[in-house]
Amino acid sequence: MVRTVGIVGLGLIGGSLARRMVDAGCQVLAWNHTPRPYAAAQADGIECLPSLQALAEAKPELLVLCNPLRAMPDMLAALAPVMDPASTLTDVGSVKGLVREQVRQAGLESVYVGAHPMTGNERSGFAASDPELFDDALWAVTVDQNTDFQRFLQVSQTITETLHNRLIVLDDHTHDRAAALISHMPHAVATALINQLCASPERNVALALSAGSWRDMTRVALTDPQRTRAMIDENPINVEALLRRMADRLVSYADAIREGREEAMQDFFTQGQPFRQVKAQAGRPPVPAPAHARTPEEPAQQEPAEADSSQQAKATMPLSLSPSTWQETLINSAKQGQRIVSMPSADQAIVLQGPTL
Amino acid sequence: MVRTVGIVGLGLIGGSLARRMVDAGCQVLAWNHTPRPYAAAQADGIECLPSLQALAEAKPELLVLCNPLRAMPDMLAALAPVMDPASTLTDVGSVKGLVREQVRQAGLESVYVGAHPMTGNERSGFAASDPELFDDALWAVTVDQNTDFQRFLQVSQTITETLHNRLIVLDDHTHDRAAALISHMPHAVATALINQLCASPERNVALALSAGSWRDMTRVALTDPQRTRAMIDENPINVEALLRRMADRLVSYADAIREGREEAMQDFFTQGQPFRQVKAQAGRPPVPAPAHARTPEEPAQQEPAEADSSQQAKATMPLSLSPSTWQETLINSAKQGQRIVSMPSADQAIVLQGPTL
Repeated sequence: MVRTVGIVGLGLIGGSLARRMVDAGCQVLAWNHTPRPYAAAQADGIECLPSLQALAEAKPELLVLCNPLRAMPDMLAALAPVMDPASTLTDVGSVKGLVREQVRQAGLESVYVGAHPMTGNERSGFAASDPELFDDALWAVTVDQNTDFQRFLQVSQTITETLHNRLIVLDDHTHDRAAALISHMPHAVATALINQLCASPERNVALALSAGSWRDMTRVALTDPQRTRAMIDENPINVEALLRRMADRLVSYADAIREGREEAMQDFFTQGQPFRQVKAQAGRPPVPAPAHARTPEEPAQQEPAEADSSQQAKATMPLSLSPSTWQETLINSAKQGQRIVSMPSADQAIVLQGPTL
Repeated sequence: MVRTVGIVGLGLIGGSLARRMVDAGCQVLAWNHTPRPYAAAQADGIECLPSLQALAEAKPELLVLCNPLRAMPDMLAALAPVMDPASTLTDVGSVKGLVREQVRQAGLESVYVGAHPMTGNERSGFAASDPELFDDALWAVTVDQNTDFQRFLQVSQTITETLHNRLIVLDDHTHDRAAALISHMPHAVATALINQLCASPERNVALALSAGSWRDMTRVALTDPQRTRAMIDENPINVEALLRRMADRLVSYADAIREGREEAMQDFFTQGQPFRQVKAQAGRPPVPAPAHARTPEEPAQQEPAEADSSQQAKATMPLSLSPSTWQETLINSAKQGQRIVSMPSADQAIVLQGPTL
C-alpha cells in the first residue's frame, strides 16, 4: 500500500482523488498551477507545495498527473530533470496513446503506468471536488511491453486496495478506440443533432414538441463545447473513423427505407439486441461486491432473495499472474469482460465477470 | 365545454385521457377492441360500450381515436357509415399527414381535427394508464384549409379548458417533419449507436468503460425496437431525409478533423449554441402559468423572488382570431414559439411565449 501520494493539479478529478486518498489514510502532497485552491485543500488535509519541483523532490511513492492534457508536455518537461527514480508516475488523462508518447519524449517511460478513471461530471475546479466521485469507479490501467511489473502493481493496488475501486488493464490503442466509441464519437453525434435542430426551418416547432427522447440524446451536447472539442482533438483518428462508420450506418438505413427493403430494415433493429439484453439483465438485483472491495464503513449488500449461492461463489475468481506474461493475461481478461476487484499479492488478481456482448 | 366524449381504444394514452376526462366532470364513453380493460375502466367511471357502432350512435360531442395507427383504416371504415355529423372526430396519432389522408379516404374529413399530445412512456395498456400523464402536456392540433373553425374550437377548448393543457396549431407536414427531427430520427441514431457498439472488436472493453454519456445517448434504443420501427415506418420520407442530413454532418466533421481545418471544427461546435442558450435559460425559475391554465386544486406557483412583475404581465398575451384567417394566425404563432394556454372565446386565444432558436 502506498503511503505518500503526490497530486499534480487540484481540479475536479485531482481534488477528488486527493481528498479520497486523505480519507484512506495516505499522506497527500499536491501542487497546482495557481495557489487559489490551497487554503481549502489544506483544510481538507492536503499538503500544498509551492512548486512542481518541490513536489517531485518530496519523493512521493506515486505521482499522479491530474492536469489538463494540453499542459502535459510542460509538466513532463519540468518533472524530467527532478523526478526521483523511486517515484512511480501515473496520470488520469482520457486518451492514453498520446500521453505515453509524451512521457516517452520526456524520457520518463521507465517509471510510467497509464491510468484513466471513468468518472467526472460537467463541473470543474477544486470547489466541485468530491471524494464520492470515486465511489464504484472503474479505472482503465494502460500498459505496454516495457511497463515495469512492480510499478504496475503499485498503481493497481492503490486503485483496488486504497481507493476500493475496480480496474481493467488495456493497451493504449484499445483504450483509445473504446473511449472514442463509447464517449468521444457519441458526444460529436449529440452535437450534430443540436446543429441539425438549429438549422431546421421547423426548429421552434420542433423545440416545442421535444420531449424525453430528445432531452436524453442531446444532454451531452450541453457540456462546454470547447471541452468536448478538446477531448476529440486528442483522439482524432479514432473519432474520425467512427464518425464515418456511423454515417454509413445511417445512410444504409435511409437507403433501406427508400427502397422498402424489409429485411434490411428489420436487421437495423436487431443488430443491437445483445446490448438490449445486457441492459435488461442489469435491471436485476446486483451480485454483491466481495468484502475486500468495500470500504470498512460500508455494510454488505443484502443478498437478493432469489440469488443462488453457487452463482455468488462463481461471481469472483482468481487469476494467476507471472512477471513474464502478466500484460497478456490481464489484457485478455479485460477483453472477456472481467474487472479486477482486488490485487491481494503480486501473483494473483481477483476478477469479477462483467456483462459481455 | 364538451360534456360527452367517446374514446376509441383504452390503451396507455386512451385510458389516461378517458380517466382525466372523467376527473374533469365529462361523461366518458369508450370502446376497446377487447373488453379486457372494461371492469377496471368502469370502476374508474368510464362507460364501456359493446361495439364501435354503439359508441358512434351514442353521439358523443367529441370522438377521440386512441387506437394504434395500424388500426386506423379499419376504425375509420367502421365509423364512416354510422357516425353522426354532430360529433367531431379527432385522434392522438403521432403522424398527422397519413391519418388525414386515411380520414379523407373514409369520407370523414369534414368532421375531423387532428391532434397529437406530446406524452407517453415506455409502458402500454389500460393498467399503465394514469391521468397525470397529461399534467402539463403540450398538444399539437393539426388543421388544413378545410378544417371547420367550430370543430377546431371544440377540440382546442377541450385541451385548454377541460384538460388544462397547452397546444400549438400546425399543418400536417410541419408536424410530421418536426416530429421526425425531434423524435423519430434520433431514435434511429440511438439504434445505430448500439449497432456500432455490438459490431465493434472493442465491444466488451467499451461496455466496461461506458458511463453517463453513453447511457443518455442510447436510452431510447432500449425501447421495444418494433415499436420504434413502426413509428419510423409511418413517417418514412421525413426520417429518411433527416438521416441523410445527419450522415452529411458527421462526414463533414470527419473531413474537417482529417484535414485539420480549424474553422470548420470550430464551426461544428458553435452551430448549436442557440439550443445551449435556451437550455441554460430553462434552468432559471419558471414563469408561473396563468390562473386559468391551472386546475382549481392546484395552488398558484410561488413567485420567484427575483421575478419582475412587469415581465410576468408580458408572459401571456391575447391573439385575435377571425373565422377566415385563424389557421394562418395560429400556425404563425406556433412558428414563433408561442403556446396557446387558453381559448376563452371564439375570437381570442391566450398565448404564452416559449423559447425560440
